[in-house]
Amino acid sequence: MYPTTKRVSESITEMTELVFPNDTNLLGNLMGGNLMRLMDIASGICASRHCESSVVTVSVDHLTFQEPIKLGDIVTIKAKVSRTFTTSMEIFIEVFTTHIKTSERRKSNQAYFTFVALDDRTMKPKIIPQAIPDTEEEKKAWEDAAIRREFRLLQSGKIKPSEAKLSKDLLNS
Amino acid sequence: MYPTTKRVSESITEMTELVFPNDTNLLGNLMGGNLMRLMDIASGICASRHCESSVVTVSVDHLTFQEPIKLGDIVTIKAKVSRTFTTSMEIFIEVFTTHIKTSERRKSNQAYFTFVALDDRTMKPKIIPQAIPDTEEEKKAWEDAAIRREFRLLQSGKIKPSEAKLSKDLLNS
Amino acid sequence: MYPTTKRVSESITEMTELVFPNDTNLLGNLMGGNLMRLMDIASGICASRHCESSVVTVSVDHLTFQEPIKLGDIVTIKAKVSRTFTTSMEIFIEVFTTHIKTSERRKSNQAYFTFVALDDRTMKPKIIPQAIPDTEEEKKAWEDAAIRREFRLLQSGKIKPSEAKLSKDLLNS
Amino acid sequence: MYPTTKRVSESITEMTELVFPNDTNLLGNLMGGNLMRLMDIASGICASRHCESSVVTVSVDHLTFQEPIKLGDIVTIKAKVSRTFTTSMEIFIEVFTTHIKTSERRKSNQAYFTFVALDDRTMKPKIIPQAIPDTEEEKKAWEDAAIRREFRLLQSGKIKPSEAKLSKDLLNS
Amino acid sequence: MYPTTKRVSESITEMTELVFPNDTNLLGNLMGGNLMRLMDIASGICASRHCESSVVTVSVDHLTFQEPIKLGDIVTIKAKVSRTFTTSMEIFIEVFTTHIKTSERRKSNQAYFTFVALDDRTMKPKIIPQAIPDTEEEKKAWEDAAIRREFRLLQSGKIKPSEAKLSKDLLNS
Amino acid sequence: MYPTTKRVSESITEMTELVFPNDTNLLGNLMGGNLMRLMDIASGICASRHCESSVVTVSVDHLTFQEPIKLGDIVTIKAKVSRTFTTSMEIFIEVFTTHIKTSERRKSNQAYFTFVALDDRTMKPKIIPQAIPDTEEEKKAWEDAAIRREFRLLQSGKIKPSEAKLSKDLLNS
Repeated sequence: MYPTTKRVSESITEMTELVFPNDTNLLGNLMGGNLMRLMDIASGICASRHCESSVVTVSVDHLTFQEPIKLGDIVTIKAKVSRTFTTSMEIFIEVFTTHIKTSERRKSNQAYFTFVALDDRTMKPKIIPQAIPDTEEEKKAWEDAAIRREFRLLQSGKIKPSEAKLSKDLLNS
Repeated sequence: MYPTTKRVSESITEMTELVFPNDTNLLGNLMGGNLMRLMDIASGICASRHCESSVVTVSVDHLTFQEPIKLGDIVTIKAKVSRTFTTSMEIFIEVFTTHIKTSERRKSNQAYFTFVALDDRTMKPKIIPQAIPDTEEEKKAWEDAAIRREFRLLQSGKIKPSEAKLSKDLLNS
Repeated sequence: MYPTTKRVSESITEMTELVFPNDTNLLGNLMGGNLMRLMDIASGICASRHCESSVVTVSVDHLTFQEPIKLGDIVTIKAKVSRTFTTSMEIFIEVFTTHIKTSERRKSNQAYFTFVALDDRTMKPKIIPQAIPDTEEEKKAWEDAAIRREFRLLQSGKIKPSEAKLSKDLLNS
Repeated sequence: MYPTTKRVSESITEMTELVFPNDTNLLGNLMGGNLMRLMDIASGICASRHCESSVVTVSVDHLTFQEPIKLGDIVTIKAKVSRTFTTSMEIFIEVFTTHIKTSERRKSNQAYFTFVALDDRTMKPKIIPQAIPDTEEEKKAWEDAAIRREFRLLQSGKIKPSEAKLSKDLLNS
Repeated sequence: MYPTTKRVSESITEMTELVFPNDTNLLGNLMGGNLMRLMDIASGICASRHCESSVVTVSVDHLTFQEPIKLGDIVTIKAKVSRTFTTSMEIFIEVFTTHIKTSERRKSNQAYFTFVALDDRTMKPKIIPQAIPDTEEEKKAWEDAAIRREFRLLQSGKIKPSEAKLSKDLLNS
Repeated sequence: MYPTTKRVSESITEMTELVFPNDTNLLGNLMGGNLMRLMDIASGICASRHCESSVVTVSVDHLTFQEPIKLGDIVTIKAKVSRTFTTSMEIFIEVFTTHIKTSERRKSNQAYFTFVALDDRTMKPKIIPQAIPDTEEEKKAWEDAAIRREFRLLQSGKIKPSEAKLSKDLLNS
């Protein structure tokens, strides 16, 4: 029997990686594209765990790179469901970096990736279990996801500027 | 003597790749994260060519995945400068996919990546040559970049909603 | 000031990975050597975190492969310090596998890897912080490590059979 | 309906790559074997595009490496059909290298790769569309391909020295 | 007709590899996990050759790392059958390292890997040809394998300490 | 003291590799470019061993691909010095393929790669030890290398057709 709800905490995914020589640019820093690849794998595993199904990435938003990550650093990627919609889900990803000599850990990135679950036979999007946020932080992420989704629809031309109610409220506040 | 302007056409970068088995997921499709990595390399080469300097990715916006790209497909990535600012530049990336048997080519993705040029000695952002758009399409991309930048600043909290003039005009239009 | 003790819980490392096509053999199973490589990275990160220093692998013991891990499975590797000696530490590694469709998680492997911390300048082994086990399980792992170490010394010819007191006690029990 | 001719310009393939750390030898130069691998991919894509079919490499000739390509350099590989035969085609490949700081571009390599198109069902060579050279350069490449092919047949023992008419004419000229 | 015996010398496998940048850690040494992966491939090829069948790694024992192997070193891995049992076989692996400038070759590692042959249809272990040791060294390895196997069974809890006769004899000698 | 001669047998290099999924094309065959990369590594190790120095590939000739090599096949690459000149050496490479189920071994490729030894300080070509062929086969390879070299010089325009004496003798024979 297919679950219809699942706690956010059940699919939290943590990935730890070392920065290898081939992941870096001439300045000795982790290349952005390699970090994106890791973020996609971590968030894809999180999304798969939530809906127990194959998933595909449909969009990436507001991905920023604050500080360089160096060769030999330890990178920890945490992915958790921020909101579920009917067939899609938004995953919030945070990246933390530690230099082994100092043991100091800092947050170096965050992003939102959106995934759709696919039915293996028809290859069409399928209905997913709804996520249940428990902590205050999870509840806030759930609320904020609505305006991020409206931005995505606006950007992709799926809604008109006049329909972007949440964005208008935000900007006119 | 360092150039202060450069045509957009001088740094256009085209990358052609085959989709290899290890780039795919269980459904036999190119994984989103691997395409992001290729888009980052292609746009990073374009940005480097424009400013003849090392560059680092600072943000990724509005990256969407429309159609699956399959094992063995030929992927062509085109990157060109859409706008320059003082030390940063926005690169527009389009992805086209061809299946060798049908020779049919379709556009499967697009995104905007932002890069900053770094001074190799100080590792600080440095002033870059301004890009000169020539075609109508290049001029339009230049104009539209302003509102995308305002969105980025708004998202990252660097400006307040009340300061997002272009966005307000768009939404209230 | 260099720490002289550290809790076992402070360096626990969790790594989550997807099994990619190139990681598998002709039967579609994760190749043993690829899993060993991941176990070495996870336990090396754990050891580095414990001693805040570069480390090198010195031995691997009792590594067994019980069940096949399939293409597309999610592999979770957990590494924690089982015991510290003067300049070396033993790390206990457990591998868990989940198939995304069933969400069933099973333990598929375990092993003990031993690392030595190196002084970056002299490249000689250096004294490491002693680990403090807290839970009953951590305390038992600490106790059992003594006989595993005696076996290693016996195997490598560093002690004579007549000196292997713990092993004799075990076998004659 | 299967095309029986195709312009040379329709299958020109351009591939742009960055030289990554793992592609280099101890001297910091791109290893010859890695460049050959890229040349094979670029020319294989060009050959596939020309005949809209799977292709396999059958020979490589006169591949020379003039100048070292360094870590971080941008490598551009251009592949175009130089001549078609009944089931095989010769592809001419040129490699250009740019150092991002100087923006100076130089030709560093060239080679001829020969491919055969395979029928997917029978796995036997199949008849390919004939290429139509347009420019003077394309027409000259077409002419010169005849003697290169005679050399290949001579080398592989498929013709006798006495049958190598074009080579004799060249040497006795 | 399936062979029932095979000489040890018939499946000896020699693998030569260069240490590439991405194989190394921050100290410029080959990472242990990468060497394990190569040892697993070399010994798996040896085991496949011996039993002309697919094989899977079931255990690794007494793997030690004596000396660092450096970037650019040439690594030679030699794998040979040390003993066959009914469905499993133990492979002895030695690793030799050469620095190209000095041409000096030293042994840097050894280990024992155990493999099981699988029937492709049932995926169950299958009976393998018995190995015939010829040289004195091969005969000694065959003898010593018995006690290593008893250790493995003891470690994995498949026999009780009281049943470990060979180990007791060794320790009480 | 630098050696001035070295036997051919002292630098023979044997490399054994498995064909992994990512090495293959859509037909399930090893891609030509990946085999070229392995041949370059094997012959580069052989050349380094002969001259105890860094080497770079300068040309590849008469590389042919006779039969497809399949996923999971065992590939053995043998490289040996065929002739030394003042600062360069020609390496003869043979590739053998075995399918594990049949144990049948067939020769699938051969090629000649030419390397130059570089002085690490000046990065200029340096004089290498002369190779001493011992067997009849090694002596014949040495003789035949002269005409291959003349072909290379002719192809690269370093000698004129009228100077290609050995080629003329061959063709007019």
